Amino acid sequence: MSSYRPIGPVVGMVGAGQLARMTQQPAIALGVELRVLANAPDESAARVIVDTRIGDYRDLSDLRDFAKGCDAITFDHEHVPTEHIRALAADGFTVHPGADALVHAQDKAVMRERLTAIGAPCPAWARVSGVEDVTRFAGEHGWPVVLKAVRGGYDGRGVWVCRTAEEAAEAFAAGVPLMAEAFVPFERELAVLVARSPHGQGVSYPVVETVQQDGICVEVLAPAPGLDPERAAQAQNIALRIAHELDVTGLLAVELFDSGAGLVVNELAMRPHNSGHWTIEGARTSQFEQHLRAVLDLPLGSPAMAAPVVVMANLLGGDDPDLFKRYEHVMAHDPGVKVHFYGKQVRPGRKIGHVTALGDDLDEVRARARHAAVYLTTGEYT
Amino acid sequence: MSSYRPIGPVVGMVGAGQLARMTQQPAIALGVELRVLANAPDESAARVIVDTRIGDYRDLSDLRDFAKGCDAITFDHEHVPTEHIRALAADGFTVHPGADALVHAQDKAVMRERLTAIGAPCPAWARVSGVEDVTRFAGEHGWPVVLKAVRGGYDGRGVWVCRTAEEAAEAFAAGVPLMAEAFVPFERELAVLVARSPHGQGVSYPVVETVQQDGICVEVLAPAPGLDPERAAQAQNIALRIAHELDVTGLLAVELFDSGAGLVVNELAMRPHNSGHWTIEGARTSQFEQHLRAVLDLPLGSPAMAAPVVVMANLLGGDDPDLFKRYEHVMAHDPGVKVHFYGKQVRPGRKIGHVTALGDDLDEVRARARHAAVYLTTGEYT
Repeated sequence: MSSYRPIGPVVGMVGAGQLARMTQQPAIALGVELRVLANAPDESAARVIVDTRIGDYRDLSDLRDFAKGCDAITFDHEHVPTEHIRALAADGFTVHPGADALVHAQDKAVMRERLTAIGAPCPAWARVSGVEDVTRFAGEHGWPVVLKAVRGGYDGRGVWVCRTAEEAAEAFAAGVPLMAEAFVPFERELAVLVARSPHGQGVSYPVVETVQQDGICVEVLAPAPGLDPERAAQAQNIALRIAHELDVTGLLAVELFDSGAGLVVNELAMRPHNSGHWTIEGARTSQFEQHLRAVLDLPLGSPAMAAPVVVMANLLGGDDPDLFKRYEHVMAHDPGVKVHFYGKQVRPGRKIGHVTALGDDLDEVRARARHAAVYLTTGEYT
Repeated sequence: MSSYRPIGPVVGMVGAGQLARMTQQPAIALGVELRVLANAPDESAARVIVDTRIGDYRDLSDLRDFAKGCDAITFDHEHVPTEHIRALAADGFTVHPGADALVHAQDKAVMRERLTAIGAPCPAWARVSGVEDVTRFAGEHGWPVVLKAVRGGYDGRGVWVCRTAEEAAEAFAAGVPLMAEAFVPFERELAVLVARSPHGQGVSYPVVETVQQDGICVEVLAPAPGLDPERAAQAQNIALRIAHELDVTGLLAVELFDSGAGLVVNELAMRPHNSGHWTIEGARTSQFEQHLRAVLDLPLGSPAMAAPVVVMANLLGGDDPDLFKRYEHVMAHDPGVKVHFYGKQVRPGRKIGHVTALGDDLDEVRARARHAAVYLTTGEYT
């Protein structure tokens, strides 16, 4: 890289998964020089980004080397130690989101404390250090109790829905700090994606419905079908308010339970999010472009939808490692469906790509996305 | 690159300009491993493509090294010697378009011979080897006579509109083989972009109007405003027919003069084309994705428009090398405009990027695109 002279602003993204990979697409258009910190040269984003540095995101000296020359540092995941982010900022590097914001996406107990303080709707919750705490919590709020790893869980990992003290004991066997939340009997899950720039400009994408299987998002419907406009506005306001109160810079995804009676915040993420992949074709500004604009403190792009209905379906690895041989059928069957592969080896259950369909009619668009996703991953014709 | 193992199909594109750069965006989504042959590591596409090889596209041994391991070879420009393309095919490499097709985009006299033979509408034309030939041609078809370099011209270079024998003599002073064409008094210029796969599947994008200044395309209006639907269908049929007759694989751009009385073919290109940049946001399948699908012999994608009106305006370098400082205004002024920078140093008159606007009303969309383009390149507020 020694002879390489950047022309545009340099954004360094720590992590080289599919989120960094997809961020490269708008970076190419914007003339933003995207740099990633990868664990290994064959990671998803490393395959498509020239300025890939290999290093350990848990090592402050690797992070410092990586940050040199970047106009902004941001993240493809939440796993960089909070104290390292503080250290980078103290060095004078521009980091978005900052440590004081990001900690709310890293530490679920800190997040619950803060959301409770600002009046955002949360389930009953408590820090718990053993089964007795859980039993006490259940005495007040009833079983089941949801135990969550305070740090490090994702895609359903680090979450235990416990119906008894015995099940709670099994969760503690994982040996990580846990917190308890009351189980929310929800009708469906929603997500709101907002972006906020250091200037304080905020925009919200339409509220979407996320469909989960075994704790993993399998489908996103944009906009959330049949959602009452007032409740949609309420969800967007919650997300924009959290972004403002927590001083989030970049994207904020707020996952919500829709309990019928009201909305409850489930999780926060401060990066491009699976619930926003539909925006690549489905919105005038993709979430990945929006994140780059936000972390560079550029004016934000229009979040308007590019079609009345957009459905995204995740591709979860099956038993067959070769997806490409089924490409042909999917493309021939539906010339309008958009396929995204992440350049990852297929492993059962692993997110290896997604498909997006756009149109006017939810049932039709959803059937198209589902057909493509099921066929690509299993070879079954739905 | 020794440890790098491709997961998806490998497409090798000879040349590393902005067309290859923009092809990387859909390659990322499709999981296609894009490799480019660059002259230097700081070229437009080399900045965003990991598998960049440095070499000389005029050197057969460089081309052979480059082609090894590619599932298909294609081109970002027309300058690879025809005989080298034949040699690669003889080696067993898959090359799209093939030499017998591509020669029609390389050699304007061969193109005119063939188009005349298949009955595609052409101006009167002749091979000329000196001023006397031009005078004879003018005697038959009148002045002005358009002299064109048979090979190698682009963006208005290699074209001389001659009103007298003296002007024709100046053109011959360039020392390259020329041909003569009758001047077509056109009302406007149109372009049709079609794709054709080795299987023979063909699709056509809507006909667009291209606005030129000094022989360089500055603006593309999609669809061509006020174009009679019959004439639009005629233009699409001409392009699809040429693609079929010439056995084009990949994209074919057909530039047409609309003389009011009828259509006349001006130029052919067999690659992604400036007249198709609007498709990145403006069509369900961008021309760059379409080209990858075609050269891999995959089913082609939908060319349907994503909005009623799309306008693309080129960014031509001005005196100021720093475009990025004007980013902010353009993005704040119009959150819906899409900016594409090519990662090239600014030089006066050089194509360094483009902007695209989408909407419902031509005048409004055109004004938005123009504002962004003029402001980005000159700092003037229109």
